[in-house]
Amino acid sequence: MEHPPRFVIEPSEALAMADSAAVTVPELLPKLVPAAQPLARPPISNFQVAAVGLGPSGRIFVGVNLEFPGLPLHHAVHAEQFLITNLSLNAEPSLASFAVSAAPCGHCRQFLQELRGAPDINILVTSHPTPQFNPLSHFLPHQFGPHDLLSLRAPLLLEPRHNALTLNSDNLNNINNHAAICNGHVDSHKLKIAALEAANKSHAPYSGSPSGVALLDRHGNLYKGSYLESAAFNPSLGPVQAALIAFVAAGGGDYHQIVDAILVEKEDAIVKQEHTARLLLGTISPDCNFSTFLCQCQPSPP
Amino acid sequence: MEHPPRFVIEPSEALAMADSAAVTVPELLPKLVPAAQPLARPPISNFQVAAVGLGPSGRIFVGVNLEFPGLPLHHAVHAEQFLITNLSLNAEPSLASFAVSAAPCGHCRQFLQELRGAPDINILVTSHPTPQFNPLSHFLPHQFGPHDLLSLRAPLLLEPRHNALTLNSDNLNNINNHAAICNGHVDSHKLKIAALEAANKSHAPYSGSPSGVALLDRHGNLYKGSYLESAAFNPSLGPVQAALIAFVAAGGGDYHQIVDAILVEKEDAIVKQEHTARLLLGTISPDCNFSTFLCQCQPSPP
Ligand SMILES: [Zn+2]
Ligand SMILES: [Zn+2]
Repeated sequence: MEHPPRFVIEPSEALAMADSAAVTVPELLPKLVPAAQPLARPPISNFQVAAVGLGPSGRIFVGVNLEFPGLPLHHAVHAEQFLITNLSLNAEPSLASFAVSAAPCGHCRQFLQELRGAPDINILVTSHPTPQFNPLSHFLPHQFGPHDLLSLRAPLLLEPRHNALTLNSDNLNNINNHAAICNGHVDSHKLKIAALEAANKSHAPYSGSPSGVALLDRHGNLYKGSYLESAAFNPSLGPVQAALIAFVAAGGGDYHQIVDAILVEKEDAIVKQEHTARLLLGTISPDCNFSTFLCQCQPSPP
Repeated sequence: MEHPPRFVIEPSEALAMADSAAVTVPELLPKLVPAAQPLARPPISNFQVAAVGLGPSGRIFVGVNLEFPGLPLHHAVHAEQFLITNLSLNAEPSLASFAVSAAPCGHCRQFLQELRGAPDINILVTSHPTPQFNPLSHFLPHQFGPHDLLSLRAPLLLEPRHNALTLNSDNLNNINNHAAICNGHVDSHKLKIAALEAANKSHAPYSGSPSGVALLDRHGNLYKGSYLESAAFNPSLGPVQAALIAFVAAGGGDYHQIVDAILVEKEDAIVKQEHTARLLLGTISPDCNFSTFLCQCQPSPP
């Protein structure tokens, strides 16, 4: 009997798998990489990458690479970024170690830098002649990272945060007239609130421009994605990408299944996602309805 | 008397500057960094970065970071990418060493990987407590790079290439009707040919989707940019970015000076730049006319 692809493995099952292979759980990670690689969706490079990581909860998380034909390559999602977003979706606060099928590129080494304790994340590259775990500090020495720009106490990528965003009042009228979302499975209000929740969890301390996306598929399933920023700017992960990771990790099929999408971002954002989000969604699912709603930072109580 | 900002220093002048400072030319590089930093244009981060590099010709090249408000951060150009594009614009075939004001991010360490002999590029970070040159192999060990995907003989980023692209014949009619380009300084044909030339120099071996952009400013100056691809996909530099580097390096002023732009890309490209190029140009210079012309690979003679 075949199992559907799974992107999260519970601690008890991880332990049982390790026991039956007579290895520790970290030693199990590289053994899970080959089976995860076919979950990748790289139609441009046809280069399937999988990253399998262990969180402090004892859960194992899988990441794979995604590529989107018809668009510039900065839309691509690397396996390590998928892995970190998967941790974020499952409220895992950090990453202890991971095994990956190819040497992590510099872009990913930089993105990993956003996590608390990043230099100590242990990485094993299964394609190396003598695979062994080495810390991220070995792969990216003299790093540029969050602490070059933020205070030491600022929440980092996987740490709890709430951006205190509320929807602008004129959106409340807009949403009533928003005829695009009408498939009956989830009402438009629910999708909008999901996108706002995603924006409130967005890690965007460098630009101050958090954003979130909620997607709805034709079966009525809802997927949320939070924009995740990098101190080095370019390795940042867009909110549509984050929501597509949620879609893929939940076993979502063809992207054409996605029928409705809402982006929530700040009215005065210096980093605006709207046109790029529309371009990506319009390319991978041409019939998807896409709307943007503006939000603002709730004033603190006096 | 003030000199205009200069992004290329000739060998004789580099030697004279080193002599007068009683240092070698490589030792001169970090001394030039502080004066180059104000040339950066980072309105989002306000974090000015400069990279000053030495090529085998003995010329010194400057790179600075560029950021574009209103757009996702993947549009940003890092100083090291500017430096490499500056080398490309000046037909410098490789990079021996450079000094940079902040630790190179992983994204840039990956982009540098596209050069022949990349592991031996010597890098000095002026902000380090004890600045000294270390090779790129030290900054990015166990690298993923071009030779993981290409043959050893394939031309790398700064090496001569010609992509054998010709404009589609229907473009020849289009151009005659192309009323947008009419400022009289440079005719539309010249701008189109410049964009084709840039596409023919584009380094896009991973997607097979070369592209080029030509910009025209209101003074009639023409700037060309070739799309430069990274083996790791996301650090790739778009053709508009490359042309903007040419604009900035030539002392171009405000981006509003750019009045006409042409993109040339392949009809069947799996990586299409058109919408993203239009978005970037429309954001930084709203009155700029933008057109795309399609090209194809010239069949080899029988
Ligand atoms: Zn990567
Ligand atoms: Zn960089």
